[in-house]
Amino acid sequence: MTTFEKSLQERYKATNIFKLECKILDKPGMLAKVTAAISSADVNIDQIATLKIDGDYRVCSLTIFCRNVQDLDVVKTGIEKLEGIELLNVADEVLEIHRRGTIETKSRAAIRNLTDLRMVYTPGVASVCKKIVDEPDSVWEMTGICDRVAIVTDGTAVLGLGDIGPAAALPVMEGKAAIFAEFVGISGVPIVIDSKDPDTIIKTVEMIAKTFGAIQIEDIAAPACFEIEERLRASLDIPVFHDDQHATATVVLAAVINALKIVKKQPADCRAVVVGAGAAGYAITKILLEFGIGDIVVYDAGGAIYRGRTNMMNPYLEKLAEVTNKDNISGPLADGFKGRDIFIGVARPNLVSPEMIASMAPKAIAFPLSNPVGEITVEDAAKAGAAVTADGRTINNALAFPGLFRGALDVRAADITPVMQMAAADVLARMAEEGTLLPNMMNKEVHRQVSKAVAAAAK
Amino acid sequence: MTTFEKSLQERYKATNIFKLECKILDKPGMLAKVTAAISSADVNIDQIATLKIDGDYRVCSLTIFCRNVQDLDVVKTGIEKLEGIELLNVADEVLEIHRRGTIETKSRAAIRNLTDLRMVYTPGVASVCKKIVDEPDSVWEMTGICDRVAIVTDGTAVLGLGDIGPAAALPVMEGKAAIFAEFVGISGVPIVIDSKDPDTIIKTVEMIAKTFGAIQIEDIAAPACFEIEERLRASLDIPVFHDDQHATATVVLAAVINALKIVKKQPADCRAVVVGAGAAGYAITKILLEFGIGDIVVYDAGGAIYRGRTNMMNPYLEKLAEVTNKDNISGPLADGFKGRDIFIGVARPNLVSPEMIASMAPKAIAFPLSNPVGEITVEDAAKAGAAVTADGRTINNALAFPGLFRGALDVRAADITPVMQMAAADVLARMAEEGTLLPNMMNKEVHRQVSKAVAAAAK
Repeated sequence: MTTFEKSLQERYKATNIFKLECKILDKPGMLAKVTAAISSADVNIDQIATLKIDGDYRVCSLTIFCRNVQDLDVVKTGIEKLEGIELLNVADEVLEIHRRGTIETKSRAAIRNLTDLRMVYTPGVASVCKKIVDEPDSVWEMTGICDRVAIVTDGTAVLGLGDIGPAAALPVMEGKAAIFAEFVGISGVPIVIDSKDPDTIIKTVEMIAKTFGAIQIEDIAAPACFEIEERLRASLDIPVFHDDQHATATVVLAAVINALKIVKKQPADCRAVVVGAGAAGYAITKILLEFGIGDIVVYDAGGAIYRGRTNMMNPYLEKLAEVTNKDNISGPLADGFKGRDIFIGVARPNLVSPEMIASMAPKAIAFPLSNPVGEITVEDAAKAGAAVTADGRTINNALAFPGLFRGALDVRAADITPVMQMAAADVLARMAEEGTLLPNMMNKEVHRQVSKAVAAAAK
Repeated sequence: MTTFEKSLQERYKATNIFKLECKILDKPGMLAKVTAAISSADVNIDQIATLKIDGDYRVCSLTIFCRNVQDLDVVKTGIEKLEGIELLNVADEVLEIHRRGTIETKSRAAIRNLTDLRMVYTPGVASVCKKIVDEPDSVWEMTGICDRVAIVTDGTAVLGLGDIGPAAALPVMEGKAAIFAEFVGISGVPIVIDSKDPDTIIKTVEMIAKTFGAIQIEDIAAPACFEIEERLRASLDIPVFHDDQHATATVVLAAVINALKIVKKQPADCRAVVVGAGAAGYAITKILLEFGIGDIVVYDAGGAIYRGRTNMMNPYLEKLAEVTNKDNISGPLADGFKGRDIFIGVARPNLVSPEMIASMAPKAIAFPLSNPVGEITVEDAAKAGAAVTADGRTINNALAFPGLFRGALDVRAADITPVMQMAAADVLARMAEEGTLLPNMMNKEVHRQVSKAVAAAAK
């Protein structure tokens, strides 16, 4: 690997985000000097804004994505050498944004005077309680459950960080709730559970379920996540949806639909290899089979999953073995790539070599989705011959989960079904610009259209 | 009882709140005609506002508190007879305010573009999770738990409505959260639990406790509420606070402090009768003893609570019997009032007669607090000779609970102690205007001062 390639691969680990405030002589070319200094430290700039104009100077903020704190030192040294430019401040913007949390409860009702208070609370609220006693179904109309989703985790599989526990998982659950609020007006409520025991987690969620209109299971490790989801679906009459499985699978399907258009292949003619049999790998495999992909072989840490495998199996892998791997191959990972049309990685960084990609069928599709570092970089995959590539920055479950829940709540669906997921994937595929895989997730119209399609499919 | 007295007593049941929209000829005296018509239906007007001026007419809204729907019919008929006045619309304003709930989750962070999203959520959020893994205490700084309080109920003792279950209790929990948000910037999170079993409720709260900075127990019936609070206090390292007990007791104490100033009596010289030994009665008795009231006798459905009583006892009533009722009286309710200086009612409507009040010591204090209808009306209590009277409209726990929690969270207190409650009661007593019992709960400065005093007392 060249230094350049190494640095490219390193870049995807970037999670240290800093905001630089620079005072810059206000004439053309000065900002370019700053960006050049940052570039020469091999650091990405994500955003630049002007904060104020002050005489002959302007103050700009530059948000940069560093691989580590050493990168920041190089950037600082570089900028400090420049004439007419002063580095005023460096802030860890992520920490600033998350300070005191990224969400809060707000009152929907104005409480300007005692009359307002007596309607929101006692004595007025008693008539609302009585209405719900008389017409139990009116709880959907007269309380916030029509918009309220529990975001439940035990903190055992948080991002790529693994088992970090319930408290350290809170910022992710809050971030998810912030996205819910901004994109589709859903009131997400983080619930971190202080146990890894599936029975305890299930019982706890059952006990508090009447508070919510739906349950989102999040960042719980496989195979516990499968059992928890299955049993809660059976016992509760509101949607229970495991984001890491189904939202991810929905977005992957949308990307596969458009990728197949680009390479002009039919699903039934395609053979896929899925690397990773955790929550995401399991669900992706199931939805791709439902969509009609010809054959899929799934790999996990125990190798290929095949009928007759005895090491590292569980009931969920047994089920996978039943419906995948038509040729029942059992060789090393490299064998799984030979002649395959689609590769999807949801395992861990740097697991896949250029040679594996090169051994795939012509016009291959490669989605190394492990976060924040893929199984192979998209650049390496493309160089090795893949016709269409995308990683976890493009294929992001935030494209699907807001609309899936909004649509389900809007029609009071009892479940989020594969049919609803297929409808969401179809909308996402259709809303992508010609020749691209997916639409822009910042476009709120995308979430509105997904919601509508999901609601329609639920009926 | 005269018709007027009956109607007065009836009025306190008023929980049907309607908003009338009237088109009124815009000249002096016209609005007075409308208010006269409403008054002659014996209905209270709580608020009047002008919505728009339209040529010679203005459109006004009038918020009225009716005892029942029949009252509304009388009001409508009365207004329809008036010339130059048209009733445009009648809305059940409480239901309108509670439609889709009174609270929502909002994002504290702006999510305007992909850079923002990548800081609130992946990949940026990973650095926040890592910080909490490395420094577990930073969860207080880097997540919303510094402002987040669970409002937990099983729905067994909701307002005066009794055991209406978890779903029908939601509007009260949401209203409470709305007050938290508006008064002290706390993010209240309703959690309704689908079980009446103390063990299950305790286990459920323990499992989700890491999500919150404090737990508010709400509207859980006695004696289960005592056990739940006691055991959760012992097992959790965050404040667990039963609102119906301690916030109510705090406000009662503040009112008693000022009432004693008005009647110029010393606490130690006073003997009190508390009617009701549920959550509120138990806590009020304890805080008044702590404050130094000379003697208290407590009554419940089984009569006076005395040492040696065998019917309808439980461990909490046994404890009360140990510290109250110096003379160990055991007669009927009327006996408990004879010569007493303070009466506090937290039982049920119309339990206390004017004769009982008349039998109290000179310059007696009477607080019939049962909601929404008192043990006796304050008018009847005053006519029977009580020098200071107040009911549940004045002595409202919303004066205390916001500041108690805000103060505790601000210093990360592990508990809300009697010392903190006494500090809150002291501030409330001092902030009341000369000659009144309590300050105005709509005054945010009151909640700020309570918070500060509670935080100081916690240290």
